[in-house]
Amino acid sequence: MNRIYEDADIYIEWEQSDIPWVKIFTHQPYKELTECPEALRRKLFDIYTIVEKAMIDYFKPTKMNMASFGNYLPRVHIHVMARFEADSHFPEPMWGEKQREGAMELPDFRLFEALLRERLKGLK
Amino acid sequence: MNRIYEDADIYIEWEQSDIPWVKIFTHQPYKELTECPEALRRKLFDIYTIVEKAMIDYFKPTKMNMASFGNYLPRVHIHVMARFEADSHFPEPMWGEKQREGAMELPDFRLFEALLRERLKGLK
Repeated sequence: MNRIYEDADIYIEWEQSDIPWVKIFTHQPYKELTECPEALRRKLFDIYTIVEKAMIDYFKPTKMNMASFGNYLPRVHIHVMARFEADSHFPEPMWGEKQREGAMELPDFRLFEALLRERLKGLK
Repeated sequence: MNRIYEDADIYIEWEQSDIPWVKIFTHQPYKELTECPEALRRKLFDIYTIVEKAMIDYFKPTKMNMASFGNYLPRVHIHVMARFEADSHFPEPMWGEKQREGAMELPDFRLFEALLRERLKGLK
């Protein structure tokens, strides 16, 4: 199952990758972050913050990366990526030139899902 | 002058590019967004929102792009990019493969600075 979390406003899905990489979507499609109603935009950034902190605590990455493009599919979503010196693209962004075959031993992604769901519980 | 805006917490600078592209920095260096004090992190996202909206109103881009990496220099900064179908990389991110020589006729960047400073005036 690709979907990690879902509530009335938002859902979170894995991106297939050698790194821990999730995408946060709004159910209602908006083209730009500034087209989202203010409460939804704030919730998106709050969820970004919770996901980033959970990835830091669980995966202990070298650096966290955030991005929101949507040039191919103009629909708001935020990428949250945990980066490691040994990953396929570091220090380039994941959209840059591939540097090597990614070779990290990372803790279980399914246990991360459980941690993240727990931390998202208090969210309105 | 490369610097567009500055207050006690934040400064905004141009990135040299064929597109309208600015970077929002905190004066105090933090490695990750979640290491910023909450009020500062919220201010960063609020400023992102003001910059995105100002770019949409002024440059009328095809799509807005946001990113925060810091893999080379692990210091929090947010990229705000106005993208156009005729720009050098569209629809790839600006870190992806170059697609063409950028060829847009864009309104004056200095007048955008004035608009942005005006909109940032109310900010705390």
